Amino acid sequence: MNINAFFKVSYGLYLISTKSGDKLGGYVANTAFQVTAKPARFAISCNRDNLTAELIRESGIFAFSVLREDASPELIGNFGYKSGRDIDKFEAVNYITAKSGAPIVTDSSVAWFDCKVTETHEIGTHILFIGEVLDFDVIDEDANPLTYAYYHEVRKGLSPKNAPTYIEKEKLEEEKTEQPAEKASSENETWTCQICHYNYDPETGDPITGIPPGTTFEDLPDDWVCPLCGATKDMFEKD
Amino acid sequence: MNINAFFKVSYGLYLISTKSGDKLGGYVANTAFQVTAKPARFAISCNRDNLTAELIRESGIFAFSVLREDASPELIGNFGYKSGRDIDKFEAVNYITAKSGAPIVTDSSVAWFDCKVTETHEIGTHILFIGEVLDFDVIDEDANPLTYAYYHEVRKGLSPKNAPTYIEKEKLEEEKTEQPAEKASSENETWTCQICHYNYDPETGDPITGIPPGTTFEDLPDDWVCPLCGATKDMFEKD
Repeated sequence: MNINAFFKVSYGLYLISTKSGDKLGGYVANTAFQVTAKPARFAISCNRDNLTAELIRESGIFAFSVLREDASPELIGNFGYKSGRDIDKFEAVNYITAKSGAPIVTDSSVAWFDCKVTETHEIGTHILFIGEVLDFDVIDEDANPLTYAYYHEVRKGLSPKNAPTYIEKEKLEEEKTEQPAEKASSENETWTCQICHYNYDPETGDPITGIPPGTTFEDLPDDWVCPLCGATKDMFEKD
Repeated sequence: MNINAFFKVSYGLYLISTKSGDKLGGYVANTAFQVTAKPARFAISCNRDNLTAELIRESGIFAFSVLREDASPELIGNFGYKSGRDIDKFEAVNYITAKSGAPIVTDSSVAWFDCKVTETHEIGTHILFIGEVLDFDVIDEDANPLTYAYYHEVRKGLSPKNAPTYIEKEKLEEEKTEQPAEKASSENETWTCQICHYNYDPETGDPITGIPPGTTFEDLPDDWVCPLCGATKDMFEKD
């Protein structure tokens, strides 16, 4: 049993959103998939602890935006790793209102779908919402959709704790035993973001924010932020 | 409403398989996704007319192989576009037997999962099977998984009629109105496979089977087969 099998399953990344009364909710998920063609219906799997799950249950509607490959780290950080119970996620993004009434985030997005919930199934820790498509459109025909493989391999992100695809860090590290850890000086000290688990490695630097290879974590500018979730340097811990 | 929105949703391609009594069943699908992490459970959406759906319902088990980017056209043709009621799909492939008893096709595969059905939901034309993962492994760590985007854009394949993501050819053609069709001689006559809808265009030739650009359909060797599903030349119709 090689746990990397789970990384061979392909997903996109989506910003799932809803509105109940005056409350807006949204989060980043990799689980949106079409279940029937006639009529077009999508399924999403949402952790039952998520505020968005609570709001979709109340309102019976959801929309989702297909994120772009170059989606903003701040947007992924806010919608993917923070709770709408603590911050107003919609304050800093552009969105339109769908037919259903759900907000559709248009920033960092390639396309969107607007859905009305037709069925709800409780599956252990998650809720599977099935939604019939009411409306859909493309925002940018030429932009590539962000895939989970790209997010994991190129942007070095991991699923947050509430995701259906969450894998404990310890399990991932068990798989890496063949790579001996030799850490002597800060030149090869890696640091991990405590918000999103992004791992900073001086050997590669960070091409997304323009940090050249060979830059130690200490030498990163004070205003450098996590390229994945926008967290500041003090949110990182040495590995 | 731009129907290309549906092509912005990311999927992998999987060979879903099962066994009921002595009968083996399997088909190619793009809908396998993880719905919970603890325990790990996957959902698959299977057309209720598929023999495999019937057999999974009887046996309560399924496995799935994650197909490789360079998966064999014959394998995709047999498992994706033909019915196990007409041919023995497993005759020409290598497979192992999973803990559950399901066959796991190891040809053209990157990784596999073995699952026991815990819930079954009828969603219109399709059945959503939820399965708890019993076992899993990686077959080839370095091979890229085949994604639906790659299959559609590079290998030029379309979903078969029973797929949750099937889009009628007419609807796709409505979207192409901006491209005027100018067809005079056989040099720019395109031909379509009636099995899998692969479109042969002399302008690009077929890099997969080594056919250079500029080769008319008539000039293709008599033993040339559809690079997507393995169909012979007589299964093609002029557009």
